[in-house]
Amino acid sequence: MIELVGFDADDTLWHSEPYFQQAHAAFENILGRYIDLADARVHERLLATERRNIKLFGYGAKGMTLSLIETAIELTDARIGGADIGALLELGKAVLTHPVELLPGVRAAVEAVARSHRVVLITKGDLFHQEAKVRQSGLADLFHRIEIVSEKDPATYARLFEEFALPAERFAMVGNSLRSDIAPVLALGGCGVHVPYAITWALEAEHQADLGSARLRVVESLAGVPGAIAELSGSC
Amino acid sequence: MIELVGFDADDTLWHSEPYFQQAHAAFENILGRYIDLADARVHERLLATERRNIKLFGYGAKGMTLSLIETAIELTDARIGGADIGALLELGKAVLTHPVELLPGVRAAVEAVARSHRVVLITKGDLFHQEAKVRQSGLADLFHRIEIVSEKDPATYARLFEEFALPAERFAMVGNSLRSDIAPVLALGGCGVHVPYAITWALEAEHQADLGSARLRVVESLAGVPGAIAELSGSC
Repeated sequence: MIELVGFDADDTLWHSEPYFQQAHAAFENILGRYIDLADARVHERLLATERRNIKLFGYGAKGMTLSLIETAIELTDARIGGADIGALLELGKAVLTHPVELLPGVRAAVEAVARSHRVVLITKGDLFHQEAKVRQSGLADLFHRIEIVSEKDPATYARLFEEFALPAERFAMVGNSLRSDIAPVLALGGCGVHVPYAITWALEAEHQADLGSARLRVVESLAGVPGAIAELSGSC
Repeated sequence: MIELVGFDADDTLWHSEPYFQQAHAAFENILGRYIDLADARVHERLLATERRNIKLFGYGAKGMTLSLIETAIELTDARIGGADIGALLELGKAVLTHPVELLPGVRAAVEAVARSHRVVLITKGDLFHQEAKVRQSGLADLFHRIEIVSEKDPATYARLFEEFALPAERFAMVGNSLRSDIAPVLALGGCGVHVPYAITWALEAEHQADLGSARLRVVESLAGVPGAIAELSGSC
């Protein structure tokens, strides 16, 4: 029996990755004034900077902005002008101030699951920005608890299970990221409901989830989550 | 009777503000290549940027770094070069990677309090950086719980008291910041032990703490905390 259901937030309950990708596209436009974009492999270089910096910055828009600036300095051999660096800062602020846009059917799906289960929100990234988004979403009242964590790995989920005083088998995680929402929970013996999102950040796309697991369901949208939880409750 | 004692972390258990001030000093040196420092009121301008951005970035070294870059672009009319912006990025990384340096007598003081009380660590700022510092400090095992919050205001402490299932009167907070550690706890009816630190960030120095409160003790170092808690337990 599943007692507790965790919901991811970014790209599960509300849109997030498109705003980061818009910032990346605008970043390339700005760099195009200095370098030949066809040669520069801007995307790969940015990703390499982000991968290196994630160990120092963690996830989120502030770290992304710092990585944009660092990559811009590297790729232009420090020729980038102050005004364009200022424009990169604004790209980061635009992500931080973007209004929260819920995915369709989110409230109804969480309410349906909450009728028969305790539900918690488990999101990773920047504490300050995530809190602001939870507040703006109008969904905070639906959740028994809101956990903002710095990384979603087996150690984090194991700590949460301990705090919830719950064995992994009684827990299902709902989210768009196989890497962060599904793989670590399956590895600990819990259940997962994967709700793919249209786009995935390259660093988030690397995963080792067991896609053949009997404890995994894949649904097209949040509307499919209550049914998937009911199914897993029978077999998990 | 006091049952639960909260300890602040930055500048209470370990040094923090000096690293930020070192970054600010290096920032002024870099700006000195572009502008007349005597005229520019660099300190005030940086503080104004930080005050404005705190609503967007929250606390911590990543937000400081973005504010350094923003202020540098403003003050130099965007004349600052890419290499110098890169140097500002490195100032931020230096804060993020600075080894944790405990204040004297910290472990003994927390252990002494923990013999008769539950103790929790309550720190604000960047989730990722704070977690790294808690890990490196070697003190995590002393605390029953570690709370990293985005702001230390009455609403946050009220939420924590609810989570701890504890009335404010049974709680004492130990910390260096009258604004973040003492004022909100006194306002809610709890007790405070103020342990002043040599320097205080200007935004942190603005406070409305009731310095005449019978529920407040001031001690010179962590070594005075167990005695202050015992005293407050009698009178609080």
